[in-house]
Amino acid sequence: MVVKELSVDERYNLIMRNLQEVLGEDDLKKLLKKKKNPVVYWGTMPTGSISIGYFFPMLKIADFLKAGLRVKILLADLHGALDGVPWEILEKRYKYYERAIVTILKTIGVSINNLEFVKGSDLQLDKNYFHDLLKLSTYTSFKNCKKAASEVVKNVEKDSAKLSSFIYPLMQALDEEYLKVDMQFGGMDQRKIMVLAREILPKIGYEARIELLNPIIRGLVGEKMSSSIEATKIDLLNDENVVIKKVKGAEMVAKNPNNGIMSLLEYFIMVSKCDNGQSFVIERPEKYGGNLEYKDYKSVEKDFVEGKIHPLDLKNAVAQEINILLKKFREDKKLHALHKNAYC
Amino acid sequence: MVVKELSVDERYNLIMRNLQEVLGEDDLKKLLKKKKNPVVYWGTMPTGSISIGYFFPMLKIADFLKAGLRVKILLADLHGALDGVPWEILEKRYKYYERAIVTILKTIGVSINNLEFVKGSDLQLDKNYFHDLLKLSTYTSFKNCKKAASEVVKNVEKDSAKLSSFIYPLMQALDEEYLKVDMQFGGMDQRKIMVLAREILPKIGYEARIELLNPIIRGLVGEKMSSSIEATKIDLLNDENVVIKKVKGAEMVAKNPNNGIMSLLEYFIMVSKCDNGQSFVIERPEKYGGNLEYKDYKSVEKDFVEGKIHPLDLKNAVAQEINILLKKFREDKKLHALHKNAYC
Repeated sequence: MVVKELSVDERYNLIMRNLQEVLGEDDLKKLLKKKKNPVVYWGTMPTGSISIGYFFPMLKIADFLKAGLRVKILLADLHGALDGVPWEILEKRYKYYERAIVTILKTIGVSINNLEFVKGSDLQLDKNYFHDLLKLSTYTSFKNCKKAASEVVKNVEKDSAKLSSFIYPLMQALDEEYLKVDMQFGGMDQRKIMVLAREILPKIGYEARIELLNPIIRGLVGEKMSSSIEATKIDLLNDENVVIKKVKGAEMVAKNPNNGIMSLLEYFIMVSKCDNGQSFVIERPEKYGGNLEYKDYKSVEKDFVEGKIHPLDLKNAVAQEINILLKKFREDKKLHALHKNAYC
Repeated sequence: MVVKELSVDERYNLIMRNLQEVLGEDDLKKLLKKKKNPVVYWGTMPTGSISIGYFFPMLKIADFLKAGLRVKILLADLHGALDGVPWEILEKRYKYYERAIVTILKTIGVSINNLEFVKGSDLQLDKNYFHDLLKLSTYTSFKNCKKAASEVVKNVEKDSAKLSSFIYPLMQALDEEYLKVDMQFGGMDQRKIMVLAREILPKIGYEARIELLNPIIRGLVGEKMSSSIEATKIDLLNDENVVIKKVKGAEMVAKNPNNGIMSLLEYFIMVSKCDNGQSFVIERPEKYGGNLEYKDYKSVEKDFVEGKIHPLDLKNAVAQEINILLKKFREDKKLHALHKNAYC
């Protein structure tokens, strides 16, 4: 493995690549000097159908593995229920998520032998975990639980908000301890929960963890990908024509790189291309200047801002890349069956 | 045992004696017809030092046993912590409560062989219990948890209220199922939690239980006995002079029976006297009419309302009765030691 040859700085830079923020950044440097294989976890709850946005954290997980980290993936089924997934379909969602995530990892070339999958209910339904959860609940105000949950859990502001919504962040904090990790990795929407986790774990005698935060990828339409608005995101199982239609319908103003397509390009397609030593090609007829070929995102962005790339040409190229990546999912009959079972 | 000779109606009347309300009263009659030995539980959390108010539910427990019920006493240590008892002294409080309650039962002649003590943490720190708690939390709004907790848990209205305060009622609901009881018994302050329990247990597939509600005994001063206001209540370990002082300081207007001393007399002293075939004696010098002797509460109240008993004479007699009952506690060195350990 290449890992052993990397210096602490190289490992540090790999971990930090494309991250938006790190809570406890000073500790990260110390940790890498002290430990050869620190442990990080990324968690997701089996809720809505999975979009290509999931490729994004998986690419970071590839970085972590290259940097010598041990990676745990928590498929947090109970958290899904706490956020409103009906208990009776939880296991079906879980099975679909498990297969879909494994397939994403394989697609981007991550060997799943190098990471550990943990099912939330296997970890959390434990006497000591419950005791610690009750302890945490006596040290944390409802107000702070609500604040922490606000960007992750649905409907916390509503009068009908369930108590489960406010237990959610405490369990996520405790997962850091019970997974025996040094760090948690998640999107910026997780930030408030992570801040709470760092604040409350020491109150019951556990260490505050380092928190690695990924930027949020914009939606194709609007600011965020939304599980309830189809047009904002591309589903892993969308067929070719749907992908083309969604990409064509995405918001994109010529010369302005601030949109969801450019996000996908920056954090997903170009990262993947670079890591595999491939180029991103925009096909154009000779009469319009012929094909364009890029090795890194910055060059694409530069040409786009300067008006050298027409939005439609860029969209076509992006749709084509996505369709290549999604081929494996479309052809996976078992994944289709699990999806049907989980959402129909 | 006398139990077997009692009719359903006699058992029903014994259970109902002095209760203020029963939730599911129709079911109680059916239950007694169907089951010879239904199970009831009474729970308490080890918080403040115990007052003589605890004699009151214990006398009802004696009734339940006579009516053929199986009785479980839940010493809810975890609930104590959820209500703010520091985790590090929880076990000390528990030990004091256990001995004090056993002593109360012995004092009123209840054989503890006929009932089962359950420690909350032994029952509740269980995988299935935790899973069910999470389920309940997804079916119950925060708003309803708060409403249910409002008369039992401290500070729920405050901005600093801990999340534990709102988990509390859900665990009390679940205790009914995990204790495998047909009924719960408690004071009227528990009513909102019991209403919630009846509403939510069926949502996760469990039966709504019958709820037996005791009236709340008035404080010596003010409406309620308050663990934070010494003058409102008499502690099990108060010495003779303190008892006399507190009883003399109690609010009591001549001819008006609406006060804490009359409550103690009605629900505690006279119940105890009647059950043991004894009389309540008010000692008076011959020149003021000589001693008065009563077999039941109604007669005392009648004479008091008609001005035939002077408040001071009544207070002296009540203080004397209380001091006799508390003798066993004062002489219990181990109880003193446990108390000191729990509160110093």
